[in-house]
Amino acid sequence: MIRVGLLGAGRIGQVHARSISAHPGSELSAISDYFIDNAQKLAGQYGSKAQTTDEILADTQIDAVLIATSTDTHADLIEKAAQAGKAVLCEKPVDLSLDRAKKCLKNTAHTKQPIMVGLNRRFDPSFGQLKASLDAGEIGKSELLSITSFDPAPPPLEYIKVSGGLFRDMMIHDFDMTHYLMNALPVSVSAQGSSIVDPDIGEAGDVDTAVATLTYADGRIAVIKNSRRAVYGYDQRIEILGEKGLLQAQNILENTVVKSTVDGVVSAKPTYFFLERYMPAYAAEWDAFVKSIVAKEEAPVSLSDGVAALALAEAATKSAQIGAPVLMKDIL
Amino acid sequence: MIRVGLLGAGRIGQVHARSISAHPGSELSAISDYFIDNAQKLAGQYGSKAQTTDEILADTQIDAVLIATSTDTHADLIEKAAQAGKAVLCEKPVDLSLDRAKKCLKNTAHTKQPIMVGLNRRFDPSFGQLKASLDAGEIGKSELLSITSFDPAPPPLEYIKVSGGLFRDMMIHDFDMTHYLMNALPVSVSAQGSSIVDPDIGEAGDVDTAVATLTYADGRIAVIKNSRRAVYGYDQRIEILGEKGLLQAQNILENTVVKSTVDGVVSAKPTYFFLERYMPAYAAEWDAFVKSIVAKEEAPVSLSDGVAALALAEAATKSAQIGAPVLMKDIL
Amino acid sequence: MIRVGLLGAGRIGQVHARSISAHPGSELSAISDYFIDNAQKLAGQYGSKAQTTDEILADTQIDAVLIATSTDTHADLIEKAAQAGKAVLCEKPVDLSLDRAKKCLKNTAHTKQPIMVGLNRRFDPSFGQLKASLDAGEIGKSELLSITSFDPAPPPLEYIKVSGGLFRDMMIHDFDMTHYLMNALPVSVSAQGSSIVDPDIGEAGDVDTAVATLTYADGRIAVIKNSRRAVYGYDQRIEILGEKGLLQAQNILENTVVKSTVDGVVSAKPTYFFLERYMPAYAAEWDAFVKSIVAKEEAPVSLSDGVAALALAEAATKSAQIGAPVLMKDIL
Amino acid sequence: MIRVGLLGAGRIGQVHARSISAHPGSELSAISDYFIDNAQKLAGQYGSKAQTTDEILADTQIDAVLIATSTDTHADLIEKAAQAGKAVLCEKPVDLSLDRAKKCLKNTAHTKQPIMVGLNRRFDPSFGQLKASLDAGEIGKSELLSITSFDPAPPPLEYIKVSGGLFRDMMIHDFDMTHYLMNALPVSVSAQGSSIVDPDIGEAGDVDTAVATLTYADGRIAVIKNSRRAVYGYDQRIEILGEKGLLQAQNILENTVVKSTVDGVVSAKPTYFFLERYMPAYAAEWDAFVKSIVAKEEAPVSLSDGVAALALAEAATKSAQIGAPVLMKDIL
Repeated sequence: MIRVGLLGAGRIGQVHARSISAHPGSELSAISDYFIDNAQKLAGQYGSKAQTTDEILADTQIDAVLIATSTDTHADLIEKAAQAGKAVLCEKPVDLSLDRAKKCLKNTAHTKQPIMVGLNRRFDPSFGQLKASLDAGEIGKSELLSITSFDPAPPPLEYIKVSGGLFRDMMIHDFDMTHYLMNALPVSVSAQGSSIVDPDIGEAGDVDTAVATLTYADGRIAVIKNSRRAVYGYDQRIEILGEKGLLQAQNILENTVVKSTVDGVVSAKPTYFFLERYMPAYAAEWDAFVKSIVAKEEAPVSLSDGVAALALAEAATKSAQIGAPVLMKDIL
Repeated sequence: MIRVGLLGAGRIGQVHARSISAHPGSELSAISDYFIDNAQKLAGQYGSKAQTTDEILADTQIDAVLIATSTDTHADLIEKAAQAGKAVLCEKPVDLSLDRAKKCLKNTAHTKQPIMVGLNRRFDPSFGQLKASLDAGEIGKSELLSITSFDPAPPPLEYIKVSGGLFRDMMIHDFDMTHYLMNALPVSVSAQGSSIVDPDIGEAGDVDTAVATLTYADGRIAVIKNSRRAVYGYDQRIEILGEKGLLQAQNILENTVVKSTVDGVVSAKPTYFFLERYMPAYAAEWDAFVKSIVAKEEAPVSLSDGVAALALAEAATKSAQIGAPVLMKDIL
Repeated sequence: MIRVGLLGAGRIGQVHARSISAHPGSELSAISDYFIDNAQKLAGQYGSKAQTTDEILADTQIDAVLIATSTDTHADLIEKAAQAGKAVLCEKPVDLSLDRAKKCLKNTAHTKQPIMVGLNRRFDPSFGQLKASLDAGEIGKSELLSITSFDPAPPPLEYIKVSGGLFRDMMIHDFDMTHYLMNALPVSVSAQGSSIVDPDIGEAGDVDTAVATLTYADGRIAVIKNSRRAVYGYDQRIEILGEKGLLQAQNILENTVVKSTVDGVVSAKPTYFFLERYMPAYAAEWDAFVKSIVAKEEAPVSLSDGVAALALAEAATKSAQIGAPVLMKDIL
Repeated sequence: MIRVGLLGAGRIGQVHARSISAHPGSELSAISDYFIDNAQKLAGQYGSKAQTTDEILADTQIDAVLIATSTDTHADLIEKAAQAGKAVLCEKPVDLSLDRAKKCLKNTAHTKQPIMVGLNRRFDPSFGQLKASLDAGEIGKSELLSITSFDPAPPPLEYIKVSGGLFRDMMIHDFDMTHYLMNALPVSVSAQGSSIVDPDIGEAGDVDTAVATLTYADGRIAVIKNSRRAVYGYDQRIEILGEKGLLQAQNILENTVVKSTVDGVVSAKPTYFFLERYMPAYAAEWDAFVKSIVAKEEAPVSLSDGVAALALAEAATKSAQIGAPVLMKDIL
């Protein structure tokens, strides 16, 4: 039984609390939060106990920590937890600064416990099936990848201001998906963005609608489309063209009911947002982490993967700013 | 917290054990089984204890029992548990004999605790959405209901021989669905069946492919199609035509991946069987039962509903045998 | 070049006029109609000439006639045209009276020119593909056939009164489809109907909603569902379950546009009615007729097929009236 | 009745011959071709006559010409035909040289007869429905357009060498579609391409897989994806995200049959190529041209539209070569 300390009792921490508790191989031993009340409340729900982060890191009975605190604390906590001999699962991103993230990677290079980054979409069952079909050669050599990733509604402006920008905050998941599916980093990244959904987002220095095009050394191309607003729900689709065909992962709908009337044929909308859509992915992610600890194997999403996703986001951010493609060799 | 005794630790008992344990309002206090080893094993998994059925019924700390034993014991256990003051959730069918089921209904008429029958499909989210749309008048008055319900593969012959026949064992779920959606019992039932999938099933006196047509006093018609074998998976679809349109509940697929090649465009199959398809329904069923106990309200699927489904199965069985429609007034 | 006389310039005659004219192997030489004005108007559109039916039948330059007159004249005209040595394509049904249709079959038994009945759905490309897959063994032995056939709106009461009833007028197409797909006639037909869409239809002695179940000697079963009203359009679906899978022919939609909004995901409706849906089938039907003349082969849908469809309709009409299954051996 | 001279009797000329002949308002008066035999053969099929191009242009009985000759002759023939007072429908592109196309536009500026460019996809019924929904405000203000356009297989290398390159030969249709749907030209075009499908195409100086991203003054963005090879058929999809939802035009499938087996659920492939997919569009295009002549109105796709599509192709070609975005103001 893996004993787990959860750092951070906010929205995403609550999601993880459930996965940790429900998993037969792990128990939620302690919870910390910047606001101790939050930690106590969540601990109460799961029969766990509230502690400070330092207490958790110092507790030799704790095998692993899940870092779900604010982004600016991630790198520090990864380093501290690794030094304390804990296995680490840290929410994305590693940091908003690529330099800091790289330093974190360097500082934990000799750690023996798994360090995993919470790029949860790799554990979505349909994306997993797409990846499996791809790796099994069902469409031969891949050529052109396309990712559509739209949120249902923009986050509050306050969030956007500290988010690091759409490319680091939102598209980072899609960058990781290109890395996961293409098994390589691109040569160049070209990005375009605008604040057509909400001019205030533009005022805040960010974009809400963006496209990034990635070119690979072997001629493959990937395109990512992001929007902060798709009023019909969370639109999460991937398709990849290969020499022998096309693989698509389509949206998951709220239910299977179809209504035909004089007004048309109406199906259900996609599930609303990431908590609905990716709940099975969060559980599978936790399961993979537990298994890597038990098997003493490398984590299935490494800190290095987390840094790579951030580097792609950095390149896209820069490309959108200068209005020209950015070479990955100038970023990494 | 509702304390629950689970009677029966077989396949379906195991499904319920999970729902009971996972529910925040119930705890799995004790488990019995004809084979005590099964009860002990399951109790071990959930931190519960193995007891005899009599011990459970005699335990005043137990609030409710879930009856998941063999069909021939259902009616007796419902009566005993009701007499012991327990709330009851009993797997379908109430009994293979309509007379026995009716007697059970009579014998428990004055029970104050809820008695619910496990006709779980009423709790399937998509069927529930279809029902809600129907009740909201979205297609106006209903006219023609059609249920497609195919199993992926026939059960063992030994099971078929004691099952009471396809109409009582398999189509009973669809009969309950007609009752649920039509809010009435039909005037007549006409059924046809054959053993085209496996002649041995015919030898055993049963059918494996069947159609039943139900006519209602107000002119509505319902059709049910059953097959014991749909090699592509568990095919569970409902559609209902009304004056203002058509409502359909379609299959749930294993994943959302679509592959296009020279051979065609391939989607995933329906989920394999009832454990995959109806797992959310089992959890929702349990939740509804717990809520009815807490609220001291009638159970959402009554013993009377269970008897009605059995009466429809009885009528269909007879109709298929005599080759003519059977009037429900001659059955009830 | 086959020279064709078109008997009947009404709605369906106009459809055929187009097919005859557009086909490279046929020309529309003459047109007759009960109302000579109709014939003249249509002839004007296609550069043809208006004549009386007798003139057309007497014209030795005419190779073939297409009978699109009122149903009560079909059998007489088939016989006259056959006697005049014309190839014949006659709209369904052969007659409303099965006896008259059988007599027509007998009276034309020694005719050398092809006599074909216009059961046009056999020429629908998707139904043809379904049939081809079935005959190629793609789902193995067939077991359970299901046909959904809903009109968008009921015809005028005046039409219904002379139509011969839903089974002979509307379901006859579906009966023919069972014959086409099952390659056999059933042992028994059981039918239920009601006038739930429009009570006036019931007053007129007909039904508007009906189900027929056909059982075959080898254990196969077919179910047909009809409604005179599906407000969302012409609903024409077929599915057949076999030992190795399921084949479905789905509706053809008006266009491929899908709109996702807060209200759901809206697709186009099925094409409105038979003229939209089956236009390619009418053209393919005519092509098949022309080819059978040129190749001096039997027509792909024989007068005997037309009589069989009518016999099934007769059985269903009787079954719905007496409330019991009817054996085909008592009808044929 | 519009009398039409068809210039060019090749594959696309044959498509137009059919539309011209079948249209009630036009007749195919004469046909010319570089190879006179081709003209004679096609004229024979349609009861037309073979002439030289000069004869056709000099014939005062000819109202309109359809130019379906090789691309290098388009601009000259447009100018000559316009000068001869003919209405003109010219296949795309106007020329491979943007300068020549612009000069053609200038040289025909004062022409009174309609000059239309055959950007036929504007007449596809589903794209037309998408455009109508967009213009009706069904998804509010548009934000992000995405076009997927894959051919089933690359053309011969010989064709590619003289085609002007993928952007001018293939993506030009998609550029026109952005113009049609966005009702504006972009500020910048950024394009990436590779020859991953066939290195020989790269050797020939062209690409076979490409992405272009267009940014608009008001913040809208459009993305086009092209591949010369999608083995499953002609993949032609458009989707556009707006403030109130998403509009998608999906592929047209070969038929509606769905087969479910142990191997999955298989639907038909998209129609194979442009002749199958866009045949209704060619007919509708011709109809629109005839109507513009009869109504003495401007053609629905102007020569200016043809030049705009070419300018976008020019910009994309340049962008892919220099590896940086190109501003449209530097092109136009």
